[in-house]
Amino acid sequence: MKTLRFLVPTFVLLTIGMTPLTVLAGGFDRSVRTVEHMEPAIPRPEQDAVVAAKLAELEKKTGRKPNILWLVVDDMGYGDPGCYGGGMAVGAATPHIDRLARGGLRLTSCYAQQTCTPTRSAILTGRLPFRTGLTRPILAGDKLTKNPWEDEISLPKILSEAGYKTLLTGKWHVGEGVGMRPHDVGFDEYYGYYAAQKEISQSIDPRRYPDLVLDEEKFEAYKELGMGHSLMHGFKGGRTEEVSVVKSTEDMGRADQVLADFTVQKLREFAKSDKPFFLEHCFMKVHCDNFAHPEHQGLSASKYPYKDAVAEVDLHVGNIMQALEEEGLLENTLVFFTSDNGPQMDAWPDAGYTPFRGAKGTTFEGGIRVPGIAYWKGMIRPGRESDDVFDLMDLFNTAVHLAGADDAIPTDRYIDGIDQTSYLLHDAGRSSREAAYFWWGSHLMACRMREYKVHVQVVLPQATHMHIDMATIENVGLAPWFFNLYISPKEEMTVGHRRNAWLATVTGKLKAHAATFKKYPPKDIGLGMD
Amino acid sequence: MKTLRFLVPTFVLLTIGMTPLTVLAGGFDRSVRTVEHMEPAIPRPEQDAVVAAKLAELEKKTGRKPNILWLVVDDMGYGDPGCYGGGMAVGAATPHIDRLARGGLRLTSCYAQQTCTPTRSAILTGRLPFRTGLTRPILAGDKLTKNPWEDEISLPKILSEAGYKTLLTGKWHVGEGVGMRPHDVGFDEYYGYYAAQKEISQSIDPRRYPDLVLDEEKFEAYKELGMGHSLMHGFKGGRTEEVSVVKSTEDMGRADQVLADFTVQKLREFAKSDKPFFLEHCFMKVHCDNFAHPEHQGLSASKYPYKDAVAEVDLHVGNIMQALEEEGLLENTLVFFTSDNGPQMDAWPDAGYTPFRGAKGTTFEGGIRVPGIAYWKGMIRPGRESDDVFDLMDLFNTAVHLAGADDAIPTDRYIDGIDQTSYLLHDAGRSSREAAYFWWGSHLMACRMREYKVHVQVVLPQATHMHIDMATIENVGLAPWFFNLYISPKEEMTVGHRRNAWLATVTGKLKAHAATFKKYPPKDIGLGMD
Repeated sequence: MKTLRFLVPTFVLLTIGMTPLTVLAGGFDRSVRTVEHMEPAIPRPEQDAVVAAKLAELEKKTGRKPNILWLVVDDMGYGDPGCYGGGMAVGAATPHIDRLARGGLRLTSCYAQQTCTPTRSAILTGRLPFRTGLTRPILAGDKLTKNPWEDEISLPKILSEAGYKTLLTGKWHVGEGVGMRPHDVGFDEYYGYYAAQKEISQSIDPRRYPDLVLDEEKFEAYKELGMGHSLMHGFKGGRTEEVSVVKSTEDMGRADQVLADFTVQKLREFAKSDKPFFLEHCFMKVHCDNFAHPEHQGLSASKYPYKDAVAEVDLHVGNIMQALEEEGLLENTLVFFTSDNGPQMDAWPDAGYTPFRGAKGTTFEGGIRVPGIAYWKGMIRPGRESDDVFDLMDLFNTAVHLAGADDAIPTDRYIDGIDQTSYLLHDAGRSSREAAYFWWGSHLMACRMREYKVHVQVVLPQATHMHIDMATIENVGLAPWFFNLYISPKEEMTVGHRRNAWLATVTGKLKAHAATFKKYPPKDIGLGMD
Repeated sequence: MKTLRFLVPTFVLLTIGMTPLTVLAGGFDRSVRTVEHMEPAIPRPEQDAVVAAKLAELEKKTGRKPNILWLVVDDMGYGDPGCYGGGMAVGAATPHIDRLARGGLRLTSCYAQQTCTPTRSAILTGRLPFRTGLTRPILAGDKLTKNPWEDEISLPKILSEAGYKTLLTGKWHVGEGVGMRPHDVGFDEYYGYYAAQKEISQSIDPRRYPDLVLDEEKFEAYKELGMGHSLMHGFKGGRTEEVSVVKSTEDMGRADQVLADFTVQKLREFAKSDKPFFLEHCFMKVHCDNFAHPEHQGLSASKYPYKDAVAEVDLHVGNIMQALEEEGLLENTLVFFTSDNGPQMDAWPDAGYTPFRGAKGTTFEGGIRVPGIAYWKGMIRPGRESDDVFDLMDLFNTAVHLAGADDAIPTDRYIDGIDQTSYLLHDAGRSSREAAYFWWGSHLMACRMREYKVHVQVVLPQATHMHIDMATIENVGLAPWFFNLYISPKEEMTVGHRRNAWLATVTGKLKAHAATFKKYPPKDIGLGMD
């Protein structure tokens, strides 16, 4: 970071020195800052108490802490699952995901970061990408100046120490050098591919990438950049085996089947163990480039590869849930289904559906609002729906709390996640999160509070359609763009800057948020900080 | 009509003489034309037989034909109900509409005309607006040259003759002169307001229309234009009583409560009769301008008038369904919930939500794709969903068929509706409709077949946002705009004109459709035919 000036637009900075890092509460902002290094939260003492009793009762019955299973799809749009308005209507029915929603809690304001690496690192650290340095996707040729994981306390590390078995299956994309792999940063075991599908297909698909794949010299140079495209099996301590290499688009198409089979097999093993487990299952699909599993080609009504990929992911969700059920694990496992960001629209037609403005790579809703379904048989009331604000980073704190490991959350750094256990598990739970902040690299862009969203910088497309590689970051005009998402969900019509009473509070939150970086400076790992 | 040239773009006309009015079937187009004056349909003999048996069994049990209840909301967007992706997520939960969907069949490709009068007349005649002359909303000051109803055979007329009690409650907007009122055109009884909410509020709301309401001279001139804003009670034969006059925005806000109370009272009466009933309940809300019912102000989470209106409509749906249940009518009543067109976005923030492109007044999906829920306890399998094409005009033929009155459908004119009884009632029913055609006045604009849609003319906004009064109708460029709605539901990315195999079929359908107007010429009633 050069100076704080690079972080936030001028008008936010104007009063930054004036904002005390003390309690902000009352009125429009219901949150309270209890400790300096934690994100202020809305106190929910009654629902906390009810849920604590419910959890204690369950633990008495099971004799152990609950299992945690995350299902993270890559680049799936908010509108893709049927239960979010898509499904059959956009060419790929999702009966298993829809069933999960009907049987649990469907979140309609669940937020990710706007790209992959940022989200994946944030949910494992409870910390914003700008704090960990993982501000954007790590790409072929990137030379990091520092291993961001060196001084991060990851969720699998905390859960391992709390007695959990920890496994990550599938896509990683948060560093593949020694010291940065899942089994280096806390997971007992890793089984998956380090890179996203597109990184892999760039070296195997001569139809889409002839200039690279068919030119021997370029191809060799590309390989040296080191974006691995092998199925890797890693174990805590460092042992790492290459299981197989993706050599064809057909191999790529089979990847998610291989991963789902592994997860199902491990769930059956875990069921026999006396330890609880934390399993993060990260699908390779539906990130471009999608190639249908040869046996599932045409699985969707649309028949397009992306839609077949949605349908296949849905199928695996069904199989994984069936394994949980067959092993008697449903009653003691919190399942959370989500996506790491919005759909990447410039890959069209290999792209998904968001009813919102923008796409992956923007801080408009299309880039950051994602499906979020919490399911826990007997613990989450079926058919619940909530539009309260939830940030995927909250999964970090919630998992730590479920494991009874709150004390393991480090106090020497800022934690952006909030424990949402009682929100997810109370029959009428309300979120403890008052605001979610949206960043683009080192740029503080926007903030959501209640149904309002304020933009202080915006990503604007510079091609006819939203293209992640053809956009600019621009300051807003005379005043922040202030949307009421209930009456302009597509962020087209602003409420206007005369809504001073609220605008001041929301921008006040932004200022307080920016101010946390004074005491807790961001980390530069060489991915670009200005 | 001046010449056929005014109807359709040149390239559609080029081969119009070549298209025989005979059977079109096989391949991409599965529909068959069995008679010249009826829209070709996809034969579904097996599901027809199953459903015929099911209906016969029910009739044996009840001893009568089934009741038919339509719930038609004004200008509600596709995305407004929760079960279509909106609801709580856009500030107004719709638990009763959602329950209807869970308990019945949710259609995701249900089409209306792009404005009010066209849809309302089409569903009561089974005929496109261009055939009846009701090509656009009738507005203050319009002088019709002919009563369009004079030679139309309306659904309530057919059902009355088939032994039904027939009632329209609520908004009419298909002519308020003698001879054009609901009780003149076939309904036994009418209880409602002739005009849309905005027509009424223009004469009572000095905050929004000071130039009209506060200027005595202009106000008198406006009143003479004759857009009635009274609650009328009419009876077949002509007797018409003015029940009350809307004098304030508060009166306007109470209108839907008055209407729902009337419908509930009539349902209780109908339950005691030995005749079946056809009741079309037309909400005044959520057409702009919306004023909350004083007792329901702030009913929605958003608190905005439009959203409160959505929540109030939902409440009335709940009350009407409860009355049906209490009177033991659920098992013998087909309920169909829908909207007459997409949301009118230029009224924002008094406007709804569509995830699609365009809005009311356009033939993009935002203007014409509407919620469509069919509910019939014991006859429609709960939880059904279908993306097959359904046109609201099909309600005409379906109602006639349910009443056992197929022979009453006139043969001297073209009927655009298709009987969809077996689609709605079979547990795995498929639509009998292969194509839906979209018109804008006398302009043939677009056609949907399967997941494809071709535009030959488009309505383009000429203001920053879609404004119904600031748009132009334009011919497409080098080739029709050809969308695959599964992969571009927002009609942004065309599949392109090289998809000749399908494009030819779809434009062939358009040509055959246009050719029906040669034998069955359109009717000019003075609303503009070119």
